[in-house]
Amino acid sequence: MIGAERRWAVQWTNRQGPPVIDSVYADYMAGRPLLRGLSRLHPVPDAIVLAGFGNYGTAAVKEALDVPAIGMAEAAMTLALPLCHRFAIVTTAPRMIAYTEDLVRLAGLAERCAAVRAVSLPPIAAPAGPEARIVAELAGVVDAARVELGADLVILGGSRLSPYAAALRRVVPIPVLEPVACGVQVAEALVRLGLRQSKAGRFAPPPQPLSEYEA
Amino acid sequence: MIGAERRWAVQWTNRQGPPVIDSVYADYMAGRPLLRGLSRLHPVPDAIVLAGFGNYGTAAVKEALDVPAIGMAEAAMTLALPLCHRFAIVTTAPRMIAYTEDLVRLAGLAERCAAVRAVSLPPIAAPAGPEARIVAELAGVVDAARVELGADLVILGGSRLSPYAAALRRVVPIPVLEPVACGVQVAEALVRLGLRQSKAGRFAPPPQPLSEYEA
Amino acid sequence: MIGAERRWAVQWTNRQGPPVIDSVYADYMAGRPLLRGLSRLHPVPDAIVLAGFGNYGTAAVKEALDVPAIGMAEAAMTLALPLCHRFAIVTTAPRMIAYTEDLVRLAGLAERCAAVRAVSLPPIAAPAGPEARIVAELAGVVDAARVELGADLVILGGSRLSPYAAALRRVVPIPVLEPVACGVQVAEALVRLGLRQSKAGRFAPPPQPLSEYEA
Amino acid sequence: MIGAERRWAVQWTNRQGPPVIDSVYADYMAGRPLLRGLSRLHPVPDAIVLAGFGNYGTAAVKEALDVPAIGMAEAAMTLALPLCHRFAIVTTAPRMIAYTEDLVRLAGLAERCAAVRAVSLPPIAAPAGPEARIVAELAGVVDAARVELGADLVILGGSRLSPYAAALRRVVPIPVLEPVACGVQVAEALVRLGLRQSKAGRFAPPPQPLSEYEA
Amino acid sequence: MIGAERRWAVQWTNRQGPPVIDSVYADYMAGRPLLRGLSRLHPVPDAIVLAGFGNYGTAAVKEALDVPAIGMAEAAMTLALPLCHRFAIVTTAPRMIAYTEDLVRLAGLAERCAAVRAVSLPPIAAPAGPEARIVAELAGVVDAARVELGADLVILGGSRLSPYAAALRRVVPIPVLEPVACGVQVAEALVRLGLRQSKAGRFAPPPQPLSEYEA
Amino acid sequence: MIGAERRWAVQWTNRQGPPVIDSVYADYMAGRPLLRGLSRLHPVPDAIVLAGFGNYGTAAVKEALDVPAIGMAEAAMTLALPLCHRFAIVTTAPRMIAYTEDLVRLAGLAERCAAVRAVSLPPIAAPAGPEARIVAELAGVVDAARVELGADLVILGGSRLSPYAAALRRVVPIPVLEPVACGVQVAEALVRLGLRQSKAGRFAPPPQPLSEYEA
Repeated sequence: MIGAERRWAVQWTNRQGPPVIDSVYADYMAGRPLLRGLSRLHPVPDAIVLAGFGNYGTAAVKEALDVPAIGMAEAAMTLALPLCHRFAIVTTAPRMIAYTEDLVRLAGLAERCAAVRAVSLPPIAAPAGPEARIVAELAGVVDAARVELGADLVILGGSRLSPYAAALRRVVPIPVLEPVACGVQVAEALVRLGLRQSKAGRFAPPPQPLSEYEA
Repeated sequence: MIGAERRWAVQWTNRQGPPVIDSVYADYMAGRPLLRGLSRLHPVPDAIVLAGFGNYGTAAVKEALDVPAIGMAEAAMTLALPLCHRFAIVTTAPRMIAYTEDLVRLAGLAERCAAVRAVSLPPIAAPAGPEARIVAELAGVVDAARVELGADLVILGGSRLSPYAAALRRVVPIPVLEPVACGVQVAEALVRLGLRQSKAGRFAPPPQPLSEYEA
Repeated sequence: MIGAERRWAVQWTNRQGPPVIDSVYADYMAGRPLLRGLSRLHPVPDAIVLAGFGNYGTAAVKEALDVPAIGMAEAAMTLALPLCHRFAIVTTAPRMIAYTEDLVRLAGLAERCAAVRAVSLPPIAAPAGPEARIVAELAGVVDAARVELGADLVILGGSRLSPYAAALRRVVPIPVLEPVACGVQVAEALVRLGLRQSKAGRFAPPPQPLSEYEA
Repeated sequence: MIGAERRWAVQWTNRQGPPVIDSVYADYMAGRPLLRGLSRLHPVPDAIVLAGFGNYGTAAVKEALDVPAIGMAEAAMTLALPLCHRFAIVTTAPRMIAYTEDLVRLAGLAERCAAVRAVSLPPIAAPAGPEARIVAELAGVVDAARVELGADLVILGGSRLSPYAAALRRVVPIPVLEPVACGVQVAEALVRLGLRQSKAGRFAPPPQPLSEYEA
Repeated sequence: MIGAERRWAVQWTNRQGPPVIDSVYADYMAGRPLLRGLSRLHPVPDAIVLAGFGNYGTAAVKEALDVPAIGMAEAAMTLALPLCHRFAIVTTAPRMIAYTEDLVRLAGLAERCAAVRAVSLPPIAAPAGPEARIVAELAGVVDAARVELGADLVILGGSRLSPYAAALRRVVPIPVLEPVACGVQVAEALVRLGLRQSKAGRFAPPPQPLSEYEA
Repeated sequence: MIGAERRWAVQWTNRQGPPVIDSVYADYMAGRPLLRGLSRLHPVPDAIVLAGFGNYGTAAVKEALDVPAIGMAEAAMTLALPLCHRFAIVTTAPRMIAYTEDLVRLAGLAERCAAVRAVSLPPIAAPAGPEARIVAELAGVVDAARVELGADLVILGGSRLSPYAAALRRVVPIPVLEPVACGVQVAEALVRLGLRQSKAGRFAPPPQPLSEYEA
């Protein structure tokens, strides 16, 4: 979240949700505590950046809040559009490829996506392994997408991959988008422009008072 | 749900979720209690029919369970395909048009959908109003979709519209699909064929034991 | 076809058409005797399942008859939708790949189809060859579509492949849809729901008496 | 058909098929005598133009013959592409709109088609009615497609409309494509270029001798 | 353009090109002086914002320069994505609707665009007319796109419309994107993130020295 | 260009533009002298064939002139449609793949294009190298597109490849379209049919006198 002073960011963690979103099940289990927590933040921030590379929760937050809310997946895809012919997304587990392809299709961006690929990170509770190994695996996946499918930009598909962005940039010849930073930049741009999600269509406020949904 | 004897159906209601899904917010707030409830059903039913005209929860249930799980929206669209050129969906509130269009696109069926339209039902707690008025409003919406957009079949987009199916059929010249019945028929067909959702892709089981997601 | 008693099926073979549909030419040559035969069946069955994995004839039968008519290709694709992320179809000859891709596109389902692939069955008059060899070939094709293209369900693209469904299921980790059984289940579901193809659009009755078309 | 001398055209009529293609049923009933007749033509013409605004038969003829075969619908759409932003097709009966939309989609040209619309010609055996009335109806349909949907070119969707092309051109401000003439021009262009349909994919020859399909 | 100090913007006008881009012809005539001018700027700015609502020139500038270059049309569409279900674009003349639809399609964003509509501004040399009249015309176009087509956000399709943004926001219930401001914000975001267009695909440098193209 | 006598063609070269179009930059630099030259031709030819495998200039020429103007890329794709299931395009440098994919998408033909591939011609000023080597490279690219992606027709994507068409046809089993010849045939067909680009939409004349654009 971006605080009231605009250069002053606060961080909020959904401690009552699962620690990592590794499935639609996890995404969905995270929903109720996420929505309850964000709708009660005080003071209300100027904008919300959701640091999960998914979008189910994002749409609900956009309905519930009056400030701009942006998911880091949509932020990264958004900034990728003017920079490339076709982007690739590398996600954190083969399990998440179909999930991420659905994100892309729901955003209406399938024509601009060359491929969704995966590396295999260890479980979140296990040691991450040596950086060099993970960077090499990322670089291999990126090169394959570039050479075989014509991808000319890559989006890191999850904040667990963010620590490797700098090292990856040194070894691949195409831009690497780190989605947390993209989310912050897009949120700041929206605040400066005085824009937020349209409340006249897909993101109209829920018709009941929010407390009614906690039956 | 369809019980172990196959002609014997049990009904389960997500009493800890909101009483009606009228937004992505409601959909998402319903998630946690829905998933907890369904994953603890005993005995495990032969199949699950989800009686909400949405699909976010559906994918999570398909991941979590080993029996076929089907949402009534996808069941109705599925059976519509061989019966028509292009279907229309009538949903229960203008608020839900964008939500439902996303359902259709995520299912990959936008080419076969002529339009999503809405009637305006009163809030769920208010009296439903006279049947004749609602049927007339439905018929007007259906006729417009048929004449202007070439829809030749209509799907009722929510179980709140199911009571009007029979009366609507008497006044419109195209097939009317009532999605609860479609869900039951597709679920039974899958059980008879020994089929369930593929566990090798989009619906693979969540990687952690389910209890881990309840942090 | 499903007989009047609904559990009682009769089989009808288009003896005046070519014995196997191996081209658009064969499909088209089969048309006239197929339509003449089916439109004269007595008693009229409750539903028709067309056991060819094509759709040209299907649309004509849907126009001509007042009972639900379903092709086994559309039935299988229809039931695949709620079960998978993206399906593959394996057809009986490389010759039929383009034909089958057109089927998928005409159904508006290209977004959900990962690939159409082929095995090479011997000509219909020749011995079928050992089952183990054909199953191994099928399994190889399925595995390639799964690993390279993310297919998580496979449809057998022709009734000549039906005898191998059970053996194939034992060796591949994704659901295998046998289209004849799918056709029967979908037809029965439609009969129970009182549904048939819409007569208000694509499947409106031919404008002349049927005998006029036999010039 | 275009005869061996290239400026010398012969006409062949499928006298054993229905006199007008007004449904998929008619299209399909026409198939067997069409294919038998064309595959026995002697001398073999340099090219075939199929004067029905449909395509099922077209693909079978392309398989069966070694000379270029072109349907007038595909010829007209083909020549429309470099001339417009988006074309409209006017067909001869509301009954044929869905049929024609399928033609467009199967050709992969839906993005370039603004609309398929219909006038209502009298049955083929009835008097055609005064030209002025039909031209006025055509002009009204064309203007609506132009103003409301941005169509900037119109294709006459059936040779029964060809007699009105000249009069229509005098009253509408967009190009009017008459498909028989388009078919002849495309066929001649293909002959001059030494091209015919590819025999390596969708239009490969039927695998059996043609006589085998007449069982 | 955004100057080296990043809060310090310089403005450059293509004085050797046509004063307004009202056709592909104008766009194309503007190209040579635009490219010559921009490739000789000194000092090189940190980023370029192209203030024409088109994209032909944009791609050439992205090839030629090593700093981020962004067109205002792509910037506005980019920022619209996370804010809406489907956007509308209002352009400055009916003449430009097809041109703008091509922009949207080339960007791969047709699924997210509800409509391109136009007002009729007077020629650039004529007096602009009273603001109230133009705002009323804009509001009428926006409301029609919102009510009939479900657009829930509008992009002003040309900098000639920018002066009316504030007044329009007071009378329409959906967000109004002014593309010059969007271009500046996206350019600044890219500079802060250290990103520019990928030089490994669509925007690779021209293979010859730039002076070679001025033959 | 096709001269007034229709069998009598004149050739015009854009001597003030770059000698080869190898980038969007080159395309754009070619624009101003191309448009100036063509709009001053005297006598006005019956039709214009633009011998560059691009389309930016094509649209501007279609706006400016009243005679049919056709680009060789669109002519080749146009004639390919009735001949194949899916075509491949082979372009003259890897640099041009993205450029050419955009051409295909802008034409609305992506569904019919199996792939865009490239060979690597030497720079235009260098010796072309032995024909056998280039033909072998072309044949390898074509075979890969045929076997791996199902392409059943190939378009040579640039007139620098035209000299190899005949040799290539002897070694690949699918039709090879040489685009200059296609452009001439389509232009002649349009002249014979009395057709030109629609002036009521995308190709309406520029609103100012042409001299106004030369500021």
